[in-house]
This record gives sequence, C-alpha cells and structure tokens, in this order.
Amino acid sequence: MAIAGSEGYELYALTIDYGQRHVREIENARQVSGFFKAKRHIVISVNLREIGGSALTSSIEVPVNRTPEEISHGIPVTYVPGRNTIFLAIALSWAEVLDAGDIFFGANVIDYSGYPDCRPEFIRAFENMANLGTGKGVSGETGFSIKTPLINMTKAEIIRRGVELGVDYSMTHSCYNPGEDGIACGICDSCLIRKKGFIEAGITDPVRYSV
Amino acid sequence: MAIAGSEGYELYALTIDYGQRHVREIENARQVSGFFKAKRHIVISVNLREIGGSALTSSIEVPVNRTPEEISHGIPVTYVPGRNTIFLAIALSWAEVLDAGDIFFGANVIDYSGYPDCRPEFIRAFENMANLGTGKGVSGETGFSIKTPLINMTKAEIIRRGVELGVDYSMTHSCYNPGEDGIACGICDSCLIRKKGFIEAGITDPVRYSV
Repeated sequence: MAIAGSEGYELYALTIDYGQRHVREIENARQVSGFFKAKRHIVISVNLREIGGSALTSSIEVPVNRTPEEISHGIPVTYVPGRNTIFLAIALSWAEVLDAGDIFFGANVIDYSGYPDCRPEFIRAFENMANLGTGKGVSGETGFSIKTPLINMTKAEIIRRGVELGVDYSMTHSCYNPGEDGIACGICDSCLIRKKGFIEAGITDPVRYSV
Repeated sequence: MAIAGSEGYELYALTIDYGQRHVREIENARQVSGFFKAKRHIVISVNLREIGGSALTSSIEVPVNRTPEEISHGIPVTYVPGRNTIFLAIALSWAEVLDAGDIFFGANVIDYSGYPDCRPEFIRAFENMANLGTGKGVSGETGFSIKTPLINMTKAEIIRRGVELGVDYSMTHSCYNPGEDGIACGICDSCLIRKKGFIEAGITDPVRYSV
C-alpha cells in the first residue's frame, strides 16, 4: 500500500475475512488503510472454514520452530488451497466496478518457494484470465494488470523500503497463530521469517512476541 | 449435475450466496442436490452487494421485455463483474481439498454472447491458471479440468437432455427478479430465454410465472 501510494495511485483497500486463525490481521488492515488514507476499505467475508484443508482454516496445527531448510521445503500445511485465486478474483470484481486497472498484490519470493499461488507464472496466468473474463477483455481495451512490487525482494529489503516510505510496522501483523491477547506467537514460520527479516535489515521489530 | 451424475461422478455441490436478487435459487439448489444425491452440498457466502455494479447485486433495475436482438447485443446490466471467476475460484479451492480433478460449470453459448466470463477462452484461461496456482500444478501432476457440457447446446437441447436424464424442472429456478412469493417474473432476459427454450423443446415448463 505504501508503494502504490508513493506512486500516486488512489487507493482502494480490500481485506478478506476467510475464517483465518489470525483474524486479528483484519483490524490491522483497517489501521493501515486509515494510515495511508485509502479512499475506501472493504472487508469481504468468504468462509473457507467450510472447505478447510489448511492449518489456517481448520484444526490442523500450525507448525512451530521449523528451521529455514524445513520452511523452504515443499508446500506447508499453512497453504490454503485456492486462497489467492479467490482473493484476486474478488479484487478483480471490485476493480472492474471501480474501472481500476491496477491490482496490487503482496506476493513474495520467500513464499512462492512453498505456496503455488504466489508464483510469478500463476500471477501472469491470472492476469491473462482476468482480461478474458471481464468487459474490457471483450471490447479489446487495455485491461487489468496484477502488480507485485515485493515479489523479488528479500524480507529485509521490504522492511527497509517500508521504513523509507513511512510505514509504522507496529500497525502490521504477520503471525499465523496469535494468542487470544493478539500477541504474535514468535515461533510459526511467518513469525520466524519476519524476525529474521528485521534482524537482517538492522531494524527493531515493534511487534510484541510471546517467545 | 444430471450429466455429471450420469457419467458416474461422485457429486459435491457448491452454491454461492452472493447477495443475488434471486436468493431463492439457493433453496432450489438444495432440492436439486438432494434429488441427485450429492455426497455434500455447501453454500458459501460472498457479499458482492458490497461491490455492486450489477442489476443482480445493486439497486440497478433488471431489464424487462427485451427482444431477442436486444438480449444478444452487448454486455447486459445483469452481468456481475468477476462473478464467475469468484465462483470457479471457490470451486477450485474445494476441489483441491477434496482431491477432485473435474469441476462442472453450467456456462452456455447463449450467455457468452453477452457475459465475458462464460466464454470458452475465459474458461480455458481459468483452467490454465488453476493448474499453475495449486499443489498439483507445482508437482507436475495432472491437475484440474473445467467441464462445461452445456456450453454449445441450445436451451431447447439442454431441456430435452435434462428430461431424458430425469430432471424435474419444477425444482429449478431461472428468474433474475422473482416476486416476494418466489414466483418468476416472466419478463426478465432469463425468464424470456427459458420460456423460449421450453417452447422450442415442445415441453411444458412447470415453473409458475407472474406474466
């Protein structure tokens, strides 16, 4: 959002309440959208707990204390089948109604080693499909572009770039499995990757961790 | 559903409650799923009224009494931006969890003259994207196939084929804008196309119409 804002875009923020364990991120998304003066922020609910199949949307446990080698190997149980396709599809719907052409999506290389729906080839295929399945595609006008400015950056680079752009990271949330008090667990893959990123960036992480 | 069942598929039925005017179709979907002995039927809510932009999900009026020429010209206001991409994305999510490869989708040629997300080129692009954005795609296994057995059939052919397969059309619903009593309006595009199909098939439509 900071990058899109710095490039002069008028911002429309979309959050999906999909039954995730870390539902707390929705409150953070509200704060971030306010901070960056989004023209509108909407929260759309899609109950993926009805479908399950992931540690984020079912009783499957979130893995903890994994090594970087373990984290980078294979598809993790925190993968939510089809999730990013659903997210992007809802974003596409809203973008078409708004007559907006550019959809920003925070996919990252660290994730696409494990999450199939963060891979560049998936994103290009989504873009192609989006342009065939919407009104602009039919009329041959310039259609939709899925922008992924973070995709090839390390977590440390992302954190530094955010700080340069005025991001207050205390508003952000990364933990897959926060406690009832909302405090990050500190030991899920997402917390471990975030902590490592802040250390490598030489910046203090303002988020509170249990461990 | 009748065609998939007749081909020996185990059936998992998905209905989306997206804030459509014709919410009554959800009750019909339950009846149809029971009739064809689906192993499971789920209803997932995605509130597209929050996004709007269509006569089906906003206060835009549903057009009535249009001629076949008017109906076949351009994208109608009943088009819901991105809707079928969202539907197929949710179906994809569930299919991946179920380890099911074949997703049946009732798109039809009559619709794809006006609805961009019913066109064969969109469906093939969705299939390609689905195979890149899911676990099977990463591992190079055979992935997902979007089956559209109705796509090139006329409405009369669809009705006749349904009758052959034992479909009880009194369980079905097509109207975009039913009255509070659930009775079909008889004058929206969808009612007009349905009525014409039954007449051409030489079969009595068991659905009640206001007009």
